[in-house]
Amino acid sequence: MPQNRRRQNDPTARRIGVDWGTTHVRAWLLGAGGRVLDVRRDDRGMGRIAGDEAAFGAVYDTLVADWPDVPALACGMVGARQGWIEAPYVEVPTALIGLASRAVTVTSPKGRRLAILPGICQREPADVMRGEETKLVGLALEAPDVASSGFALLPGTHSKHAALEEGCVVHFRSVPTGELFDVLGQHSLLRFSLERDGAYDAIAFDDAVLEGATLRAGELTAALFNLRARSLLEAFSPAAARGRLSGLLIGAELALLDRERPIALVGSGGMIEPISRAFRVLGRPAPRVFDGDALVRRALAHLAALLEGADI
Amino acid sequence: MPQNRRRQNDPTARRIGVDWGTTHVRAWLLGAGGRVLDVRRDDRGMGRIAGDEAAFGAVYDTLVADWPDVPALACGMVGARQGWIEAPYVEVPTALIGLASRAVTVTSPKGRRLAILPGICQREPADVMRGEETKLVGLALEAPDVASSGFALLPGTHSKHAALEEGCVVHFRSVPTGELFDVLGQHSLLRFSLERDGAYDAIAFDDAVLEGATLRAGELTAALFNLRARSLLEAFSPAAARGRLSGLLIGAELALLDRERPIALVGSGGMIEPISRAFRVLGRPAPRVFDGDALVRRALAHLAALLEGADI
Repeated sequence: MPQNRRRQNDPTARRIGVDWGTTHVRAWLLGAGGRVLDVRRDDRGMGRIAGDEAAFGAVYDTLVADWPDVPALACGMVGARQGWIEAPYVEVPTALIGLASRAVTVTSPKGRRLAILPGICQREPADVMRGEETKLVGLALEAPDVASSGFALLPGTHSKHAALEEGCVVHFRSVPTGELFDVLGQHSLLRFSLERDGAYDAIAFDDAVLEGATLRAGELTAALFNLRARSLLEAFSPAAARGRLSGLLIGAELALLDRERPIALVGSGGMIEPISRAFRVLGRPAPRVFDGDALVRRALAHLAALLEGADI
Repeated sequence: MPQNRRRQNDPTARRIGVDWGTTHVRAWLLGAGGRVLDVRRDDRGMGRIAGDEAAFGAVYDTLVADWPDVPALACGMVGARQGWIEAPYVEVPTALIGLASRAVTVTSPKGRRLAILPGICQREPADVMRGEETKLVGLALEAPDVASSGFALLPGTHSKHAALEEGCVVHFRSVPTGELFDVLGQHSLLRFSLERDGAYDAIAFDDAVLEGATLRAGELTAALFNLRARSLLEAFSPAAARGRLSGLLIGAELALLDRERPIALVGSGGMIEPISRAFRVLGRPAPRVFDGDALVRRALAHLAALLEGADI
């Protein structure tokens, strides 16, 4: 592949950024100012090779084989106890830019060095994140006003709600909305009611967002059975059931956010639309939207430069 | 087996009662006054043979092969759409004793007749039960005061909360507490934190019952992630995690019950102890406790007699 051969000696390549999560890994070859020169992706996330140090090394060497050996920095579950090497959690309150100094470095079988960023943790109430903190670093670079005093919402499998002050994460909370949706949709009685991979019904979603925002804990549990009963007793379509489950969980999550506080919404692809819609349904001011992937790349490029003491 | 041969011509045998649920089936050979003469059990519940009419017949003939061909009555998922034959739901408000008249009869390959009781449903909010209504019939026979004006709690995979008036079910609500516990413990991130089949930690359970009773929906979701984080960051044992998950869900469920209303607790085996404990933790009056299996047998014997126009 001529393109790849060219990359191997690309003089404009400055750094490699890697986002290695539970389900997949992505690597970007970055040029000056964090410009993306090339990208690689693999589905051997941490979950598939947990605890297998050799597998991490092999996957990494394959992933970047065609790229020059420039300084590389990774974030995400690759730094968990079951990852390539443990990059121990840094406790809140913690300065976002300071995370670079707590990176741990590994060397791959082919001799490439990769620095891995730590996650952050909170003792009371107990909470952890790995990967999202790097998006928050990117957010701090992109929107210094939010980092100086703001609130970020990162929806997803394990949504993160983070309060930022003076460039630090001071407090955060995880809400496993996406995971509950997946687990209930695949393994609970709702598996018979939901459309798999189908579009959701927007009306059912909107109703459920409003309802979910007002429910007590036991009422949410009961609403799950009610959803199954509706699909048994009524002409309640699988798409409506999917919209309703999503809406209940998202409404319940968003009700945790301070109504008055401006929100920076950091998301990727499919999550932005339903969350923004839910904000409208709840009559909340529209959040400022940031692209999570762009923030990760910006953060990795910036922190890698800091580690080298070099320009970005 | 001499004992079984004797049963085949047992002159004291009056009826067969069958409780055929999703996960297993039990059959009792009943004598005068509902006395249990013999019992059979099989794990081919409706879930394993759903939609397979021939399988239901074969399982039934095997189950009662050694018993005399006396009138037989069944309750539970065997009457669902995917069961042996559909016994359509009867809508609330409905008189408990009247359910007998809505039974549907099948004939097995060996020529045995089996009447199958309907479940009950509710349109607003949508809800269904199949099997629990038969326990409620038994409760009405055992405790006419509760049936005349009372409230029953049937904890389990899909807990049922039922308001009874003048021998009728007037309203009910299902709370899938047991199913959530199982699905989250087996398929969510909590699978790494929970002791499988282990004893639960009572202190963690008690704390969580109190907490679960006060949570909003999103706070319950967040508490699930917090539980995982505690087992990562603290010396939080799998037994404590198990106690905490159970307590959160049970506390959330019990908070739905009117504090002042006396509760008839209908349970079997393992459920009575934690639910009674949760009542104490929440400072609620102790519920009156009824054995669910005994209620089912009593109801089946009684309704079978009604169907024949005979004495119990």
